[in-house]
Amino acid sequence: MNFLDSIDQPTLLIDENQVHLNIKTMVERAREKNVQFRPHFKTHQSARIGEWFRKFGVKKITVSSVEMAEYFADNGWQDITIAFSINPRQVKRINNLASRIHLGILVENEEGIETLDSITGIKVDVWIKVDVGNHRTGVNWQEPPAILQLSQKILKNDALILKGLLTHSGNTYQTINADDTCRVFREGIDRLNQVRMKMEASGINNLKISVGDTPGCSVCEDWSGVDEVRPGNFVFYDATQLKIGSCKFEQIAIALACPVVAKHIERNEVVIYGGAIHLSKDFLMVDGEKSYGQVALVSGNKWGPAVSDTIVKSLSQEHGILMVPNVSVFNTIKIGDLVFILPAHSCLTVQVMGKFASLDGEVFETLNRR
Amino acid sequence: MNFLDSIDQPTLLIDENQVHLNIKTMVERAREKNVQFRPHFKTHQSARIGEWFRKFGVKKITVSSVEMAEYFADNGWQDITIAFSINPRQVKRINNLASRIHLGILVENEEGIETLDSITGIKVDVWIKVDVGNHRTGVNWQEPPAILQLSQKILKNDALILKGLLTHSGNTYQTINADDTCRVFREGIDRLNQVRMKMEASGINNLKISVGDTPGCSVCEDWSGVDEVRPGNFVFYDATQLKIGSCKFEQIAIALACPVVAKHIERNEVVIYGGAIHLSKDFLMVDGEKSYGQVALVSGNKWGPAVSDTIVKSLSQEHGILMVPNVSVFNTIKIGDLVFILPAHSCLTVQVMGKFASLDGEVFETLNRR
Repeated sequence: MNFLDSIDQPTLLIDENQVHLNIKTMVERAREKNVQFRPHFKTHQSARIGEWFRKFGVKKITVSSVEMAEYFADNGWQDITIAFSINPRQVKRINNLASRIHLGILVENEEGIETLDSITGIKVDVWIKVDVGNHRTGVNWQEPPAILQLSQKILKNDALILKGLLTHSGNTYQTINADDTCRVFREGIDRLNQVRMKMEASGINNLKISVGDTPGCSVCEDWSGVDEVRPGNFVFYDATQLKIGSCKFEQIAIALACPVVAKHIERNEVVIYGGAIHLSKDFLMVDGEKSYGQVALVSGNKWGPAVSDTIVKSLSQEHGILMVPNVSVFNTIKIGDLVFILPAHSCLTVQVMGKFASLDGEVFETLNRR
Repeated sequence: MNFLDSIDQPTLLIDENQVHLNIKTMVERAREKNVQFRPHFKTHQSARIGEWFRKFGVKKITVSSVEMAEYFADNGWQDITIAFSINPRQVKRINNLASRIHLGILVENEEGIETLDSITGIKVDVWIKVDVGNHRTGVNWQEPPAILQLSQKILKNDALILKGLLTHSGNTYQTINADDTCRVFREGIDRLNQVRMKMEASGINNLKISVGDTPGCSVCEDWSGVDEVRPGNFVFYDATQLKIGSCKFEQIAIALACPVVAKHIERNEVVIYGGAIHLSKDFLMVDGEKSYGQVALVSGNKWGPAVSDTIVKSLSQEHGILMVPNVSVFNTIKIGDLVFILPAHSCLTVQVMGKFASLDGEVFETLNRR
């Protein structure tokens, strides 16, 4: 029996072969460019998928929280960077982690540095989180004196190893094509290198540069001036990455299978069992309209090609509404069928679902369901 | 020690006393209006909170999925309506449930009715899901022949008990004040009553009318023509309900406690550990700007009053950015402090968090973490 026949509620399917290919491609890119690969595990949050990375020689990883670091440390990962500016309230857990594994942490302000004073006797890698234009957080790259001051304070503490400058150019997600992505990607790297040169002029040497966004790492060729990359989303990709041009449709490795429960021909709408609690409320813009993902129909034991001109128009808690203007597609979809939604943002869909099913129906869980 | 002092990561706090008050108020409203109260449990999704409802005599509940019905049936609930149009793929589980408890289900189309043919030997309440203007799903109220046809088919099956007409006027969430809410609330009820009269003229009698949205049930006085109400969100309320005018600030009974990790005075921004995976990506509009919740500061062992002119400007996976234009408020907030975010939409925040902590630190989980 085809596993799809047994699906009776929203189920997040994962195409394991495609995930392996996505990992392999990125591992090879980093190797070719001679750059340290430290993939971000926040996208999959799964010990099982972590094992798939190991097969390609990955030993160093990035996570987005102390909790996630603990989870992967419990699953045998020995070299983890927590790519989130240090939260003074978690210093005890950070100390515990540092006693178990090779740990990297981020600082961006005086208060963070003061927190580090209570880390003693255990070596911890410290990265300075730099804002190169995304303006989420980090020390502004245009303020070398502030960066110098943080560096000096880190160097004064024997427990801390000043590793370098780290950024997340999240603004590549606002780009519109590969050229635009690479302009933003290079801009971030160049700005970090300018800071590095200024630090060298002040006697702070050997700073590494760590960057990490899936769009830039997927499509840009010029990685000069980069020591480490930390992409995460590439493991699955998603409809947003497809729209930016970071991946091909075939590279998207997860999709939510959703039962069809109603159709409303008078407004070209199909109602699915699959809502905000299954996909998250993240969306992308498609021809000026919000869409909560990319629709595909069943093909064999997985999803087939993208259905064009069809959007996920709205989501409530359990319901999704597809707008299907093409009448022949509309007629193809029957109540009781499954349709697939390729997520707008796979990281959040994985987080809300908390578990995957392989194409042959094996279920495995994430940190969130542990 | 104050429990808040021990919080080191985003934590969903619940004010149990306020929840009890919210339940009591709605129970008393329904009793006063002589209308069956069948609260929707999709907001809290918690067996523990379900017990608090029992203290007020609640025995009949609404849920939004078969999975949730199974969870509450496992926790002793014997009378459950699944307020989601029947999904043909779940008929086996529905049959199983119907053999254990008094079950209500929804149909809105021929395919749903055909599914019901496989329910035999066990009595099931069937409601016809009617669209009274929200246009999410349901049979259009302006199509009495379609409703009549569904009714007749239900009546032909001895296993099915035709209960009545059910709607969710989700469009009250788009209203701007109590008068506007009540206009939409009444419109929905009046339309269902028009349908009921037409069904009576065709010989279909004793149809009940079930409605259920928190805004309408909270603020509207005229419940004439209603047999049953199914509000859910009122148990906690949230920033959206506050904006619509469905509740007072003091009635909001949950808030996410978030550590402050960075401040950027040059753009009046405070960075918190608390992002889309903690709050969901639902937002409300505040003076033309998106806000992912309402900010409050610590006061005693919980949150204090709303901080005016402050919005949750953006969320990424783990980060939240607060825009705090008032300099004295900005200066009050220190790195390492906790701030509270009252959710834009409490149902989704509860779903992504999957657990609550009481004000004295007792943790309990929802269906999602079971």
